[in-house]
Amino acid sequence: MSEFTEERVLALARRAYREGSAKFEVVSEKCALLVIDMQNEFVKPGWTPYWVPEATRQVPRIKKLIDHCRKRKIPVIFTVFSETHNYLDRPKTGASMPNRYPELKIDQSSFFVKGQVWHELAPNSDEIVIHKPSYGAFYDTPLETILKNLGKDAVIIAGTLTNYCCGMTVRQAYERGFKVICGSDVTSTDDPDMQEPELKVLRKGFAKVLSSDRIIELLK
Amino acid sequence: MSEFTEERVLALARRAYREGSAKFEVVSEKCALLVIDMQNEFVKPGWTPYWVPEATRQVPRIKKLIDHCRKRKIPVIFTVFSETHNYLDRPKTGASMPNRYPELKIDQSSFFVKGQVWHELAPNSDEIVIHKPSYGAFYDTPLETILKNLGKDAVIIAGTLTNYCCGMTVRQAYERGFKVICGSDVTSTDDPDMQEPELKVLRKGFAKVLSSDRIIELLK
Amino acid sequence: MSEFTEERVLALARRAYREGSAKFEVVSEKCALLVIDMQNEFVKPGWTPYWVPEATRQVPRIKKLIDHCRKRKIPVIFTVFSETHNYLDRPKTGASMPNRYPELKIDQSSFFVKGQVWHELAPNSDEIVIHKPSYGAFYDTPLETILKNLGKDAVIIAGTLTNYCCGMTVRQAYERGFKVICGSDVTSTDDPDMQEPELKVLRKGFAKVLSSDRIIELLK
Amino acid sequence: MSEFTEERVLALARRAYREGSAKFEVVSEKCALLVIDMQNEFVKPGWTPYWVPEATRQVPRIKKLIDHCRKRKIPVIFTVFSETHNYLDRPKTGASMPNRYPELKIDQSSFFVKGQVWHELAPNSDEIVIHKPSYGAFYDTPLETILKNLGKDAVIIAGTLTNYCCGMTVRQAYERGFKVICGSDVTSTDDPDMQEPELKVLRKGFAKVLSSDRIIELLK
Repeated sequence: MSEFTEERVLALARRAYREGSAKFEVVSEKCALLVIDMQNEFVKPGWTPYWVPEATRQVPRIKKLIDHCRKRKIPVIFTVFSETHNYLDRPKTGASMPNRYPELKIDQSSFFVKGQVWHELAPNSDEIVIHKPSYGAFYDTPLETILKNLGKDAVIIAGTLTNYCCGMTVRQAYERGFKVICGSDVTSTDDPDMQEPELKVLRKGFAKVLSSDRIIELLK
Repeated sequence: MSEFTEERVLALARRAYREGSAKFEVVSEKCALLVIDMQNEFVKPGWTPYWVPEATRQVPRIKKLIDHCRKRKIPVIFTVFSETHNYLDRPKTGASMPNRYPELKIDQSSFFVKGQVWHELAPNSDEIVIHKPSYGAFYDTPLETILKNLGKDAVIIAGTLTNYCCGMTVRQAYERGFKVICGSDVTSTDDPDMQEPELKVLRKGFAKVLSSDRIIELLK
Repeated sequence: MSEFTEERVLALARRAYREGSAKFEVVSEKCALLVIDMQNEFVKPGWTPYWVPEATRQVPRIKKLIDHCRKRKIPVIFTVFSETHNYLDRPKTGASMPNRYPELKIDQSSFFVKGQVWHELAPNSDEIVIHKPSYGAFYDTPLETILKNLGKDAVIIAGTLTNYCCGMTVRQAYERGFKVICGSDVTSTDDPDMQEPELKVLRKGFAKVLSSDRIIELLK
Repeated sequence: MSEFTEERVLALARRAYREGSAKFEVVSEKCALLVIDMQNEFVKPGWTPYWVPEATRQVPRIKKLIDHCRKRKIPVIFTVFSETHNYLDRPKTGASMPNRYPELKIDQSSFFVKGQVWHELAPNSDEIVIHKPSYGAFYDTPLETILKNLGKDAVIIAGTLTNYCCGMTVRQAYERGFKVICGSDVTSTDDPDMQEPELKVLRKGFAKVLSSDRIIELLK
């Protein structure tokens, strides 16, 4: 009988989900920070059904990470959802997804129009804001081209929601050959129980998952 | 105070994760079935550390789904990992990920060479097999072109691993505007505890998640 | 000896370049019109070294085509170059190309900032304008997604320059599976001698090349 | 009146088409050579209506370039058209294009099946061959990923046809941020009158166009 029994492969998988760490170095000069969708719709308490309370709580921590990157001349790139191309640039089935909460009989026409980053994290005038049409910041946008032009081969991910826009962006960056560092405590989702499962998937197969303190330490 | 309190947004999110159902019709004539990576490395008991025992157990159910699709003239497309382009087509950090199990001091050179679909699910000679370089079946492959040429706008996902190659393919199909139907009991992963969390994410934001019996019922 | 002699293959090629016509139908309901880069930098007489005099002369003809499409409810989509993402979204070697005229010692900082469509062809408020970073309107933009959402499988190309932004967009549309109709007298380039060679290449391998009168006739 | 008169802009354009030279350095260590479609269908005299006699004549020159690159450890990557994915991976309108010569009442079923590189230029066993579905070598293939993994940021283009597969690959490489060097006498097309017009377009806006002797000189 093989050495790879059901017990053994399960144990291997579980250890990788829990404790795995991608084996690449974090080189400060090659990194860019992506701040995903920290916009009013997700951060401003109580404004929309899409509010992510944990995102609001993480603002100070994300701000600290942004400030650190600015000091170290690490580019900070923001993404938002907004009214672009009359919303005709969105994935075709997006509007039919449960996360749009069609069961709420409310007027949603003022949401995701301006794409305004939460004021405490406002981009500097020379920082890039990508108005992205889909969860993933790379799809149908020039993000990869921008990173190439900046000479970066690694991205640090912070923002919200961990298991949608952040997680999709992590996956896309991985497929495009970037080293991906995903912040464990500067990403958030709408159900706290869903945070760790997503981080486990990313940790085992897509990214180095680290606390923001550890990221700051590595970005000397 | 807003009507969207922390309690309310959490309840909304949880219901969508648990019970949500994307609001689109499944139209048999517009569907293709994607059978993701049901290859020996993942299915053959005990051969590799990548064995997914649940994938092996799902073979009969996946076979039933494949047979049904063949009878209904729904195209069945297979994907595998194999030796393509001297493995230089893989995402750059792939080899550094924990799911490669570098801690095992074994010779892995015979794995993922031939990309052979498990014999019980062997493709017919006229069925397409895509040798994909990454988790997602759309990245760096002509899958979208093939689906366009077949006139399909919906994909049904079965195979393994739910939270890597299946989940990534679901996400990519969603972003490209396809309707995505993800089988809940014809996808599997290496830790049973990780199955439902992934399905929840897909259900709320990317796909209609259905049992294979229900899929067969809808594919009249 | 083979029947395919040097004389024969040359004759075949030349006939296809000159008289070939792609064998697909133009179906009005499936078309969108793309008006490429008819912006002040290329159209306003004498403003920049990038002025294309023939583009200026074609304005009435392009206007007629736009008006016809609007009447027939065929979507009109405009593209422009403008200041997007601090210009970091441009192909890396773009600035080193001869068509940037570095030999001119002039201040170019006011060019390609606003991306204003020439006033006689101004988009309606509900028409989409794509601020594209590269020659091709599909690269790093959501144009394909927009066309999918509009339910279109064919594009009509007008604008400037025939052998750069128009030609690249034709090629990209072809590769993405669209039927491409390229206007022969509503596209223009900076050297009249270069117009026909480009149309020949497109006609033989990428698009149906037709006069604007013929296009209007077909778009009943 | 502006300094940019019609005469002036025409003169500028013509000089750039004729004498322009992209302003970037050729760094041997960062280059890969792409040998485009030098397969029997295009090279073997008289076999098919797609034969490009000039391609056959250029074989010794391309061989010299390949040999030089091999000596300098510059990767050589080949592309071919062949039977892939039951031909369902081809652009949808491809078969309707004049360059398929439907007017010939011949059996074409033995063409573009094996994708065999012409024997005098046969790839070494460790060299990559990309079976591409479309004109451009980057579309729906992992070519960009391969170049990233090889650490290359520049490509040298040789092969056939200049104004289809070579030209499209040049354009795609340019858009993806690569430095592109296009061989002027190691690319060929089916009508000698079409060679220089295509090179002019590439020279002015996409690539550094150089003779193979000059390329060899630069690849020290």
